This record gives sequence, structure tokens and C-alpha cells, in this order.
Amino acid sequence: MRVFISLVWLTMLSNVQSVPAWYNAQRDAILSTERLQSIGSTLTLSSDEEAVNSIIFRTKQMDINGAINDDSNYIPAVHFFQGRKRMEQSKVFEIIQQMPKGAALHLHYGSITSNDWLVKNVTYRPNCYMCVKQNVITLTGFYLTPPVDKDCRWLEISAERAKSRDIAMFDQRLYNNLTLTVDNPEVVYPSINVIWKRLQQYFQTVQGLFLHSPVLKDALYETLKEFHEDGVQYLETRIGLIKPYELNGTTHDFTWTVETFRDVVNEFKQDYQDFSGAKLIIAGRKTGNTSAILEEVKATMDLVEQFPDVVLGYDLMEQEDVKHTLLYYISELLYPRTQKSNLPYFFHAGETEWLHIHGNNLIDAILLKTERIGHGFAIPKHPEVMRLIKKRNIPIEVNPISNQVLKLVSDLRNHPAAILISQDFPVCISSDNPAPWEALPLSHDFYMAYMALAAPDDDLRFLKQIAMNSIKFSKMTNREKASALQQWETKWKSFIKRVKDANTIVYVG
Amino acid sequence: MRVFISLVWLTMLSNVQSVPAWYNAQRDAILSTERLQSIGSTLTLSSDEEAVNSIIFRTKQMDINGAINDDSNYIPAVHFFQGRKRMEQSKVFEIIQQMPKGAALHLHYGSITSNDWLVKNVTYRPNCYMCVKQNVITLTGFYLTPPVDKDCRWLEISAERAKSRDIAMFDQRLYNNLTLTVDNPEVVYPSINVIWKRLQQYFQTVQGLFLHSPVLKDALYETLKEFHEDGVQYLETRIGLIKPYELNGTTHDFTWTVETFRDVVNEFKQDYQDFSGAKLIIAGRKTGNTSAILEEVKATMDLVEQFPDVVLGYDLMEQEDVKHTLLYYISELLYPRTQKSNLPYFFHAGETEWLHIHGNNLIDAILLKTERIGHGFAIPKHPEVMRLIKKRNIPIEVNPISNQVLKLVSDLRNHPAAILISQDFPVCISSDNPAPWEALPLSHDFYMAYMALAAPDDDLRFLKQIAMNSIKFSKMTNREKASALQQWETKWKSFIKRVKDANTIVYVG
Repeated sequence: MRVFISLVWLTMLSNVQSVPAWYNAQRDAILSTERLQSIGSTLTLSSDEEAVNSIIFRTKQMDINGAINDDSNYIPAVHFFQGRKRMEQSKVFEIIQQMPKGAALHLHYGSITSNDWLVKNVTYRPNCYMCVKQNVITLTGFYLTPPVDKDCRWLEISAERAKSRDIAMFDQRLYNNLTLTVDNPEVVYPSINVIWKRLQQYFQTVQGLFLHSPVLKDALYETLKEFHEDGVQYLETRIGLIKPYELNGTTHDFTWTVETFRDVVNEFKQDYQDFSGAKLIIAGRKTGNTSAILEEVKATMDLVEQFPDVVLGYDLMEQEDVKHTLLYYISELLYPRTQKSNLPYFFHAGETEWLHIHGNNLIDAILLKTERIGHGFAIPKHPEVMRLIKKRNIPIEVNPISNQVLKLVSDLRNHPAAILISQDFPVCISSDNPAPWEALPLSHDFYMAYMALAAPDDDLRFLKQIAMNSIKFSKMTNREKASALQQWETKWKSFIKRVKDANTIVYVG
Repeated sequence: MRVFISLVWLTMLSNVQSVPAWYNAQRDAILSTERLQSIGSTLTLSSDEEAVNSIIFRTKQMDINGAINDDSNYIPAVHFFQGRKRMEQSKVFEIIQQMPKGAALHLHYGSITSNDWLVKNVTYRPNCYMCVKQNVITLTGFYLTPPVDKDCRWLEISAERAKSRDIAMFDQRLYNNLTLTVDNPEVVYPSINVIWKRLQQYFQTVQGLFLHSPVLKDALYETLKEFHEDGVQYLETRIGLIKPYELNGTTHDFTWTVETFRDVVNEFKQDYQDFSGAKLIIAGRKTGNTSAILEEVKATMDLVEQFPDVVLGYDLMEQEDVKHTLLYYISELLYPRTQKSNLPYFFHAGETEWLHIHGNNLIDAILLKTERIGHGFAIPKHPEVMRLIKKRNIPIEVNPISNQVLKLVSDLRNHPAAILISQDFPVCISSDNPAPWEALPLSHDFYMAYMALAAPDDDLRFLKQIAMNSIKFSKMTNREKASALQQWETKWKSFIKRVKDANTIVYVG
């Protein structure tokens, strides 16, 4: 491995023969001390893995070398909306897409099911309505008779489709109404507030679809399928305490949702034996008043007790910069302790470029014994937070593309998780809300992590470790974890064989 | 101080009364552990300083609070070209401008003298010519008879000015030819290569002015005056081994340049008794061939021996991503050691978003015992480099606006020096090439450091420490340093009194 790196890099140094041996020794000592701290660097690869590494690592280096003279060519240096197509044509992406990636641990229900499926499946169902205002769909829902709305006009989608002359174009317009992708994100989304508003509008637009109980079931199955196809075998998703509805307007309580979720996941596991499962984290909003949050905390305590195999704990979410802090809700979040009870937390914290006040959510997350940290973008600016995270081994759910799209960082080489990765912090990679920005469940984010958050020297071992981390940092039971890891290892071996064989054929042919 | 912070911040937390005391104690412990690691946090302020702090810190907090709901309003979050005017209208800037800032340690001769002076003084001199190609000045120089050039047309500037109908507009056009400032930097400078090319074009355009020996002398005096007016009392500037010329075409060797530099600095010190001086760092280019660099190393060794009070050592500079590495020149840079001799180095290193290869310049800079590190943008991604820098206390010359203009980072809250500052690394703030982008010698960069690199909680103590750091990290002799620090303290006291009095009047009136 070390020899391989040296050979490739050294071709760039025509003068290298003149480096004295004593100097090289000192230099190598620093380099390897650094290298050995990076995620995955202590793994040993089998000879088959080395063969695959020689493909994916060489390609990475070629892509980097090709961009060094003009880094505006470097995919992670440009906006995801502008680099995605090029990414998808790259060899690195092709291999990452095939790779078994383990678990996706930071997701939001309602933004993890592809827009394609929503348009091509859900909107084709009878009684599916959209509420249109100035050619924009602002709401959706299933009705026997649509409501009267002052602000927008309710239209049945299949009727409108039937009336349209060009069905493909009609569906494309529906799709365009959903996607956040644009050619010129800098112009359309000039500030963090604008893009957050657009994301919230996405949730508002689609929630009437996802809350319809038959869609809820099908969407969950479809989501698991899409994740499974992308090499994800387990997921934990945040979800609000939603009340799904039937066509006649009756609603279910959240217990029904949990039971339905459990049943669909089990059905999916029956159909796909290599899938390890899915669990829920209840997520409130940092806009709620304190009494509402206290009710949610209590409800989640009950749910965790009632469904210990499905409901994991509680989180609070929202655009972190502008909403309430964790400290604002401190009494409510400490409530379980006053009851001598425990509610596992999975807090979003440090999803901000600011430090205090909002960066201090990191401190409160730690004091509230968070099981993991969502985002943690601000972590490296907090030395004591860093020390505590390392000491207590608190996993960090990093979502590179989300942070770029939601305007925390433009060039992903500047993503602070690079610092965490270089020091072997417990990092896993997730995708937050892949659907609205047309990302695959994990592949695009794994690409960004490999090409920009990891060092240029980080190779297949980084990818392997990141995948294993995700299972390790999940909240499966120990028995589930052991089984999931075994399933992952089988997939990994077959992935290695497939990539090796495919590329051997290419070289021979 | 602590009380003051709490009062201001806590107004934002309407729910704060419900925080249990035991929780607050744990929280404060983490917060103060972090706070005490930040640059300046261990300083104790006098009551006069506290009075000034209450103005500059409250204003900082107001500016931050005003931007929290829409951070596209936050000056360090936008491009310097777009935020500069608003910055100059801010109270924080007004106070920083008056503040004695100590030393500027990372500068490049030829880009530290205001364009205003070049246009209004130098181009008004007789025999000053410009070479124009498609309405752009590509070269300048002083000639009895201008040369014949295939690529551009030589015109005497004063003759052209006399012919022009509108002298103000003529001068404005000259100015526009020099400045890099534009309204839409994202469009005009889409990549790091484009903006670097434009900066190099600046150097190429003005070098014919600065190399003319009478201008060289006057420009140096003018530069010292501009720095002095901006509260800078000492500077160390990089300079190439230039050969200034006389009007008749004869040239001087570099020894003449050093002697001239020393004489002008001494003259200035006579005129401004509170000025501490200026020294030179010889800087080669990472484009040169190895034998040329070896010659420069040898020449600099001689110069350091001949002018120990003026010439400090050697550096290699250039757009780091695309040019040779320090390792490429390793034999040449190790040459002094082979002679059992020592040449102090002041290397640019880590001025890049890449890690290896070019990020590894940091490792070579350390192994070559660099006295300071220029930029060090990549440092936090190198854990072992961080450890060594901290252990050996190697000062880092941070240039915030330069890094933004030259496209390493767009939002300065993401500048990696924030991490170094939060851990009390030996950081000083400089301005690199302030003239081409119309920055003052240090004020604009100090503003950015205070508002974006330091934490929102960092107050006057940060600014005071950063100013003192610059003197401490300079390469003055110990005696010179002691005297400079004494001069700085006198200035500081009078600054504190002035700001306090001025603002007391405002409050009373």
C-alpha cells in the first residue's frame, strides 16, 4: 500500500532523487503518524481488496491530479447541482455505487423517497389532489371531495393529466415542482434562509401524500427498496409524531404509524433477506413551545417503552441558526431524569457556521448525553467539545451534500469533517434529505466523503471503515449488529469480487 | 467580563430561568474551559480597557445578532469586495482602525503601497510610461526613450493625461487598470487560477514603477507612512532579489536595494519616533529551476551575514496548488546545513485547499525549521503538523482577506484559523497584498479576524493579544522587541483613552 502511494505521487516530483535518506526518514515519520490517525488507516486489505483498491484509489488520484491545475474542475469543489452529472460518469462513483455501505443513520422521513416514485406512482393514484397557486403546487392530499381553500386551487392530478396534451411534460412539471435542483443555485438560493425556506416548502408540499395511510405504507416499502438498491442495508430515520389519514378523513394515532412501520419493515426483510432493518427516532421542532415539547418527550418515553425494537429516542430539529436552542428546552429535555428514567437523545447540534449561541447546542447535546450528534459542522471550533466527543466516543452523523446545498460550505474540501476524519473521530456518513436534491440514498454523499472529506491519500480502507462505522454506530441491539455485520461482510466480499472481475476483464479485453 | 457576556447573551434566552443550577454549573465548566483556550482569554483588562471593551464587544454582539436571522447580511460571510463599504461604516471597524496593531509580518513588496499613491504621485512624474494593449496597461516604466514593443504601445502617461479632456476620469481609468476590486467577483474571477493570474498581472504591471530607484525610495517611505497611519509600527516584507534601475537604464545590485531600504527606514524612524522599523525576507519563486534557487539561497546567506539587522532569511512563494513543492527544492534548501551554516526560513505553506501533495509543504516547512508559517490554511487537517507547531510554538501568519479574495474560502466564518485561534495557537494577522484589493495595511484584516475568525465571545482581549503576538512573533532583536512593545503600550494606552473619551462624550451628549 505504502509503496503504491509512493510510486504514484512520486511521478509528480521530478527532482525526488535528490532527497537525502535521513530527511526522507523524518518526513515519512510525520506522514505516517498522520496517516495512521485517519479513519480506516489501520485496516489491512486482502489481496482481492488490494486489487480493487488499485482501481478506485488510482482513479481517485487521477481525478485529483486532473483537477490540481484547475480546481474548478474538481467535482466536490463545485455545487452538487452543477457537479452531479459529472460525478455519476466517474469510475469512482461507479464503484462506490456498487459498494455495500452499511447503514444510513441521519435521515428525515418525507425527504428520503425519490421524487420519481412520487410522480410516477403516487400522483397516478385516484383521489390524489394538488392545490395550485400561481402554477406552483403548494399542497397535496387524497380526498373524496377536495376542501375549499382560499390560497390555492385544488385539482385532481389524474384528471389534469388526462386533460393535458403531453403526459411526459405534465409529469415533468410535477417533478420540477418538487425538486430543489436548479442550474444556477447561487442565483436561485442566495442565502441560507432562502434554501431552508425552499426545503420547508418541499416538506409542506409532499406531506399530504406521505400522510395518506396507503401511501405511507407503500412509500416506506419503496424507500427501503431504493436504499437497498443503493447498497444500504439498515436505516434509522427521524420522524415527527405524525397522524396518518384515510381517504374518508379519519386519522390514526402515532402508535398505528409505528406498528405499520414495523410491519412494512418486516415484510421488506422477508422479501429481501439481506436487509437488516429500520428504526425510528422521534423528532420535534425547535419552533415548538416548551409545553408541546414536554408532551413529545413524554410520548416518546412511552413509545420507547412500548416499541423498544422500533423507537430509539428523541431529537429536536430545525434550521439551527434561527430557531430555539436546546438550552431553551432544557427543563423539558431533563424531564426524563427527574423521573429517574432515561430517554435516548439523538440531537442535531452544530449545524451552523456560527459558534455561540447556536454552536453551543453541541455542549448541551453532550450534557444531555446524546447518543450521536447530527451534523456537528461546528465541532472543530470547540476544543473542549472535541475532547469530550473523542473521550466518550460520541458518533457524528456527517451529511456532506446537505451541508453544501443548505449553504454551510461551498467547496466541500473545506468541510470541517475533514479534520474529524484526519483524527479518527467516530464519523459516519449520511444524506439527511436526499430526495429533494436528487441524491441517491448514500452513493453521492459517500463519493463526496471519499473525494473531499477524506485526505487524497485515503483509499478503499477509508470507505470500508466508514461503512463498518455506520453499523457500529447504529442503535441496533448487539445481536442485530452482529448479524448485520455478517450480512455486510458477505456483501462486501461479493462486491470486491465483482469489481475485481469486471475490471480484470476490461484490462484483458 | 464573564458577567457581562452572560447578561448580553442571556437576553436571547427567554426560558433561561428554568435552567437548573447543577446543569448550569456543568455547562459553564465546559464553556469556560473552551473560553480559556482562546487567544487573549487569559488577559486581564484595566477598568479603562473594560470601558472600551463594553463598546467594541457590545457592537460586535449587536452586529452578530443583527445577522443571525439572515447571515447574508454578515460582512465576513460575503466577499470583501461586496462587504467593504459596509464594514467601513461599522463602529467595530472605526475602533479597530484607531487601534495600534503592532507588526505586519506577511507582506509582499510591490503590493503593499496604495494604488491611490501610484496614480496620484508616481504616474505624474516625468518619463513615466505605460505600455497599452487593447486599452489595458500591461507594463510600466521610466524611460528617456521608451522601447519598441511588439505586444503593446508605449505612451508617456503625463502626455496622455494632458491630451485627455477629463483628468479625473483619466486617473480613474489608470486606477481601474490596477485594482482587482469588481462588483461581481464571482463572475469575473470564477476560479482560483483566474484570480491568481489577475494578481500576477498586477505585479507585472506595477513592477516597472517600483523598480525605478527614485520611486523605490519614495514608495518605501510612502508605504511606511500608510502602515503607520493604519496603526502598524513595524513590518517584515517579502521581496525578490530585485535590481532597481536608473532613468539612463543602468541597474543596481540587490545590495544597493538593502542599503537603500535601511536608509529609508531609518529616515522614516527619524521622522516618526514611534515607528519601530522594517525588515526584509528574501523570497524566490516556486517556478524557478533548482540551480537558480540554489543561487538565491547562497545570495541570501551572504545578505543575512552582511545585513543582519535588515535581511532576515529566505522564503519561496507562488500559487501553491500548481507550482513546485518545497520538497522539489530540498537539496537547495538543505544547502546551508551542508555548510554547517544556518539560513532562517519563512516559508509559505499550506496555502491550499488540497492536502497532499501541496499540503505536505507544511511538513517540509517544519522539517526545514521554518521560523514562521505563511498562511497555514491547511494546518487543521494535519494532526501531526498541528502537534508539532504547538510544541515548537511556530507562529502562523494568517491573511484572512487574501484567502477569501484568492478563493480558498468564501465565508470567512469557515476560515480554518478559527480552529487555531480557539486553541491558542501562535497566530498573527497580516494582509499579504492589501493594495491590489484596496484593503488598508491591517485594519480590514483585523476586522475579519475579530468578527469571523475569533469566536463571537472573543472581545478586546483577543485584539490586544493579536497585536502583542505580532510583535512577539516578529524577528526583531530582543532589544528591539522590548522597545517596540514599550512603544506599543504607550500607543495602546492613548488609544484606550481616546476611544473611551470619545464614546463617553457621545453617551453624555
